[in-house]
Amino acid sequence: MKIIKKINEMQTMALGFRRQGKSVGFVPTMGALHAGHLSLIRRARTDNDIVVVSIFINPAQFGRGEDYKRYPRKLRQDYQLCKKAGVDFIFCPSPSSMYTQDYQTYVEVVRLSGPLCGRFRPGHFRGVATVVAKLFHIVEPTIAYFGLKDAQQALVVDRMMQDLNFPVRIKVLPIAREKDLLAMSSRNAYLNARQRKEAAILPEALLLAYKLVKQGERNASVVIRKMRGLIRRAKDAKVQYISIVDAKKLKQQKKIKGRILVALAVWFGKTRLIDNMLLSA
Amino acid sequence: MKIIKKINEMQTMALGFRRQGKSVGFVPTMGALHAGHLSLIRRARTDNDIVVVSIFINPAQFGRGEDYKRYPRKLRQDYQLCKKAGVDFIFCPSPSSMYTQDYQTYVEVVRLSGPLCGRFRPGHFRGVATVVAKLFHIVEPTIAYFGLKDAQQALVVDRMMQDLNFPVRIKVLPIAREKDLLAMSSRNAYLNARQRKEAAILPEALLLAYKLVKQGERNASVVIRKMRGLIRRAKDAKVQYISIVDAKKLKQQKKIKGRILVALAVWFGKTRLIDNMLLSA
Repeated sequence: MKIIKKINEMQTMALGFRRQGKSVGFVPTMGALHAGHLSLIRRARTDNDIVVVSIFINPAQFGRGEDYKRYPRKLRQDYQLCKKAGVDFIFCPSPSSMYTQDYQTYVEVVRLSGPLCGRFRPGHFRGVATVVAKLFHIVEPTIAYFGLKDAQQALVVDRMMQDLNFPVRIKVLPIAREKDLLAMSSRNAYLNARQRKEAAILPEALLLAYKLVKQGERNASVVIRKMRGLIRRAKDAKVQYISIVDAKKLKQQKKIKGRILVALAVWFGKTRLIDNMLLSA
Repeated sequence: MKIIKKINEMQTMALGFRRQGKSVGFVPTMGALHAGHLSLIRRARTDNDIVVVSIFINPAQFGRGEDYKRYPRKLRQDYQLCKKAGVDFIFCPSPSSMYTQDYQTYVEVVRLSGPLCGRFRPGHFRGVATVVAKLFHIVEPTIAYFGLKDAQQALVVDRMMQDLNFPVRIKVLPIAREKDLLAMSSRNAYLNARQRKEAAILPEALLLAYKLVKQGERNASVVIRKMRGLIRRAKDAKVQYISIVDAKKLKQQKKIKGRILVALAVWFGKTRLIDNMLLSA
């Protein structure tokens, strides 16, 4: 396994793979890898000749007052995990090489960036789309892998890829979950013991929504109200949003119909957790 | 010479050239080719194994009330010129394939898009950056060629290319001019006989600026005032702007110093012409 820090070195390698007709599987991450990332890496390993994992905590996708500075950094451990998983290259550029002094170019996926997390994290998806565009140009992957935990992110990236005609395929894999079904997240490390225990209420709330819809409930606000009621039982939990939207355009649904996404963001103290579930009514 | 209309066909060809290690020279145009375009094509021919010219009148870079609908369309003649110039592929996609119904992704080069033409054509450079990003992903050029007549466009594209790490090189070639030094432009075709004659005042005004600076004038507003005075002699001319900016960041210069760009946009009736000159004080 090779660790590459320089952008042009990575780009030269990528060009070589293209010339050799080798397929490159790419897993972009912010490090602090967990079983969710590893499921993407394993899939990339199965599908491709070469596997590249990027580890880059992207300043452009953090807002003011968000957790850019304290975001977990575990490079040593990440290297070990990648090596064990058969990764060929780790690409971990410096922030100052990715965003040079006169940096000023941004990619925006206008409509899909608006709802859900976009409402509470202005500029977040612009930062995501921009860094993914950059990484695609540097790594030139054949297939890039994203997790469904960031469902809106996956949609934004997929839309960008289609709209800008990137010669890249995107695969989105299911959410990896802990034993109590809490969605795997690098941010779970922020939680204290009580918060960690309470956080299992989030997948419970999603399962409640699933049950209600399967039992025939079609009124989105009824489902959301019941989810809120459940989450209220966790003392430290503070709901930022619970939304039911169509799974393609992320438009708010009053009446539940077709393929929908139930998505939520909930604060536990200073830690913001997200989770979601796709389902068909 | 092959004419390709389908995006995925062009993309498949491009992938093949990458695999074969062939260099691809790319000249993006809106058609109605003139000697300026041809100088880019000739250079692309000299530098590369394969030459691709795109002909696409990009709706995203025209504002409301601008000349998208009446922009000259001369496909037959363009094909002939390209064939004679040794072009291998003309790529001419349909607007509806380039901007599908749910299209919503835009690339913006924030600061460089603001001054000069950007002030009068809001959204123009966003449209330019977006279509160039798309075309780069479809054609995957080794080198792309732009004319210096659209000096701000060349800077915007170059900045985008650097900021987003496109694996593409950019070459910017000098302005091609008519016998009376009017800058070649597809829009010159809009001019009536009198306007066409009067339009030679634009390069004259730039030469005046050149002379003044060489003679030691360092006050930008004095130079601009004298240029305006000269252009006023043309009855049909209506100045939109004359600006003196630094040649890198396009910041307004009060005192002329270092490498500068003298740029102007002038209306002749309903026709808006631009021209510029780079010079060093």
